[in-house]
Amino acid sequence: MANRVINFYAGPAGLPVQALERAKAELLDFEGTGMSVMEISHRSKEYDAVHNEAIALVKELLNVPDNYKVLLLQGGGNLQFAMLPMNILHSGRKADYIVTGNWAKKAFKEAKTVAGDAARAIVSTEEDKFNRLPRPEEIHVNPDSAYVHFCSNNTIYGTQWKDFPQTGGVPLVADMSSDMMWRPFDVKPFGFIYAGAQKNLGPSGLVVALIRDDFLEMCAENLPNMLQYKVQAAKNSLFNTPPCFSVYILRNVLAHNKSIGGLDAIYRNNLKKGELLYGVIDTYPEFYKGYVKVKDDRSFMNVDFNLPSEDLDARFVAEARAAGMVGLKGYRTMGGIRVSMYNAVTVDQVETLCGFMEEFVKKNG
Amino acid sequence: MANRVINFYAGPAGLPVQALERAKAELLDFEGTGMSVMEISHRSKEYDAVHNEAIALVKELLNVPDNYKVLLLQGGGNLQFAMLPMNILHSGRKADYIVTGNWAKKAFKEAKTVAGDAARAIVSTEEDKFNRLPRPEEIHVNPDSAYVHFCSNNTIYGTQWKDFPQTGGVPLVADMSSDMMWRPFDVKPFGFIYAGAQKNLGPSGLVVALIRDDFLEMCAENLPNMLQYKVQAAKNSLFNTPPCFSVYILRNVLAHNKSIGGLDAIYRNNLKKGELLYGVIDTYPEFYKGYVKVKDDRSFMNVDFNLPSEDLDARFVAEARAAGMVGLKGYRTMGGIRVSMYNAVTVDQVETLCGFMEEFVKKNG
Repeated sequence: MANRVINFYAGPAGLPVQALERAKAELLDFEGTGMSVMEISHRSKEYDAVHNEAIALVKELLNVPDNYKVLLLQGGGNLQFAMLPMNILHSGRKADYIVTGNWAKKAFKEAKTVAGDAARAIVSTEEDKFNRLPRPEEIHVNPDSAYVHFCSNNTIYGTQWKDFPQTGGVPLVADMSSDMMWRPFDVKPFGFIYAGAQKNLGPSGLVVALIRDDFLEMCAENLPNMLQYKVQAAKNSLFNTPPCFSVYILRNVLAHNKSIGGLDAIYRNNLKKGELLYGVIDTYPEFYKGYVKVKDDRSFMNVDFNLPSEDLDARFVAEARAAGMVGLKGYRTMGGIRVSMYNAVTVDQVETLCGFMEEFVKKNG
Repeated sequence: MANRVINFYAGPAGLPVQALERAKAELLDFEGTGMSVMEISHRSKEYDAVHNEAIALVKELLNVPDNYKVLLLQGGGNLQFAMLPMNILHSGRKADYIVTGNWAKKAFKEAKTVAGDAARAIVSTEEDKFNRLPRPEEIHVNPDSAYVHFCSNNTIYGTQWKDFPQTGGVPLVADMSSDMMWRPFDVKPFGFIYAGAQKNLGPSGLVVALIRDDFLEMCAENLPNMLQYKVQAAKNSLFNTPPCFSVYILRNVLAHNKSIGGLDAIYRNNLKKGELLYGVIDTYPEFYKGYVKVKDDRSFMNVDFNLPSEDLDARFVAEARAAGMVGLKGYRTMGGIRVSMYNAVTVDQVETLCGFMEEFVKKNG
């Protein structure tokens, strides 16, 4: 048995051990082929089955209607920041951006690079150091927008949209890199959803995206092939060689998610994990000082807090590591502690962390 | 022990079993971290060591001078077809393309999409169905070119440049996806080299590139970040989350290559493999009808031939599969047989194939 740690990294992050054990067992001989899944042609029936199962599982777990295509892309969320406006913001189209953190801001900046003033930031919480989400009355969507872009979970600041922005019918677009599939949700208001796999879904080097047919119809056709959503959709994400092993691990993760009860069960776990961790934080608010100022905006994926001193922050990280918990150091510009508890982090593991936090405050509080 | 087949796939293709065994042994616990290498932050010291070792091994194995950067990119060769002209063909610059097969032609077409008439096809062997490479006297490089692009090995047609095109000092650019590191070579005439990893280097979803400093200096700065070579170079290919597991397997493959004697030893093996296989083909030229018409142009990586009938082609593939050899069916537009024998294919395995071919011609010739 491998001696595993409790993994609170913000991404790449922990994956379900069952998905990894499955990969390990067949790493040199995938389903009796005598080859690793890494060594098989992407045009083979064996890889095709994996590819299509991964896509089918995305659809099944999220209950995706038939008028959406699932895309498996490369280049991370960052390339999507550019591909989205390259595909949509032509022919005089404009779009609105909601800026709630570093990644949302980067998405907006790339849209400016691609489309200039056609990309408009309609609201930002940067003045409040991104410690909250915009209130509904702060969001004024332009009715001529092709889409409203937002980031559903802000990994760095620890905010998360529970209710999505109201747009009066303008299609939503979301970067869901850090909370894709943390719960069931209705995809129908979305024209496009994208998520780097490396937090909640699988390894890095893979993006899972959903695009609605009417949104796809708007996409540009004068771009290089690899940058065209239409090409990727028409070819079932097999225009060129996909990142086969990453798709395979995605398949393993999603199959595991289904086996434990799908997104309903995962959502219950995630709610329980949040209740446990925020329970400790709210019990000792002078010791565990949460970064996010509006309780409803707090993320169930990434939880940021500071201890009373940097010395205590450092001691917390070191003692947690000694107790088998890694990845707790805050983001470099934030300091303090960040607990990332994506789907693969279990309720038991969060209980262990909470027990550690109770002890730590007793010794140092 | 896994029951492994002999893998002649054209890509994704076989990898050294030692590189895979290393990955399997530590798939759930990488170097005592208690995590898979897939689960570790790309900003951790553990991943950083893997990333930098992979880059150092590329430099060491190819004896790369200090005025080159190694880049680890995503999106396959196809995205490079577009990124290259996006980065270089601005400010009135032009480039020459040598068209020797499907991939070389696609590279040229993407350059036309990006840069219009600034991309010029200076020679094509399409009239000869790509069954040969251009002769030196057919290549007329425009002295005003920023680069001359060619594809060093044509996977589909089975041609390979042994001597690179003469350009009178214009920088070479090569797509080496299917023969990168098949032998030592002098990188100094090259401004840029790129290779999808999934044939000779590692898993799909990763591109290994080399860019010369003066070439990098010419690159555009008004593109989205992910499409800028300057950004990737300045950030040591860690601008965003890289495809960590693919980089890790690349590291394992290159470390194995070094351990068996580096590219000199690999080249000797590849020459021996070619001698063996072409030996059989040339002994039975009426039965194993090679596609490439100029012997010096024949590839040591991909070998195409047709048997006297399609029935025999099919029987060859089926009987080879029954004998533990897979991936021999010709490319869909070519028919016949294609033997891909990248670095991970051993001399012994090619001897096994040659023995099978001798038997097959005796039974059916």
